[in-house]
Amino acid sequence: MDKFMQSAIEEARKGLAEGGIPIGSVLVKDGEIVGRGHNMRVQEGDPMAHAEISCLKNAGRIGSYKDTVLYSTLMPCYLCAGAAVQFGIRKVIVGESENFHGAPEFMREHGIEVLDLGLEECKEMMGRFIRDRPELWYEDIGK
Amino acid sequence: MDKFMQSAIEEARKGLAEGGIPIGSVLVKDGEIVGRGHNMRVQEGDPMAHAEISCLKNAGRIGSYKDTVLYSTLMPCYLCAGAAVQFGIRKVIVGESENFHGAPEFMREHGIEVLDLGLEECKEMMGRFIRDRPELWYEDIGK
Repeated sequence: MDKFMQSAIEEARKGLAEGGIPIGSVLVKDGEIVGRGHNMRVQEGDPMAHAEISCLKNAGRIGSYKDTVLYSTLMPCYLCAGAAVQFGIRKVIVGESENFHGAPEFMREHGIEVLDLGLEECKEMMGRFIRDRPELWYEDIGK
Repeated sequence: MDKFMQSAIEEARKGLAEGGIPIGSVLVKDGEIVGRGHNMRVQEGDPMAHAEISCLKNAGRIGSYKDTVLYSTLMPCYLCAGAAVQFGIRKVIVGESENFHGAPEFMREHGIEVLDLGLEECKEMMGRFIRDRPELWYEDIGK
């Protein structure tokens, strides 16, 4: 498997071990991970700390995003897709979108290349979490 | 002036006094401020800490956003508009959009009522900041 997606999955598993929502993300620039993070809603009581937002926060002030690729274990929602659009990220690679449709059309309309790897490992991890903790999941996506 | 917008402006001025980007935001639910914040890019080195994101973070896990109104001194960008869309905020009131067009069409397409007050006080504060610190401003919007 793509080693960067593997790192995003590791982030998701860290979040799960902390009692959080298992979504992980890494930001890659010039072939190197410059930021990584996972959903921190539960851990920090922060509803904005989606995996991709945590990852981009942890990457810090890196300047231009035009040569970056954002990895996420799950298709980004409008919040995270909005970050990608606003900061000019050109490529987003996701683990799956079966458990959550997210906002791929919105990203594509803004010229972002969106690749969905459809990984069983991601589908299984997220699917199980949604079955186990539906209230937490629906809170996280504002439903 | 609208007292909630006045609070958002106070937040923006706090940010400016801290050496940051002068954009402020408050979240109102049932006629009361439940969250407030300002842009923290400089103060925390966090590129995701736009005013509206800081405000929503500070509001914490409030449950449903359907009866909330988000105030901002400046028209939200795609990141912050994405948050409003994802979490089901129904109304966004902004101080101005002359210094930054932002993403009002995107919010309106998703059923959000967007009100632009066109306030001179907001235009002047943001306009002066952009003239004084253009590099910081363009970094903040990913340009």
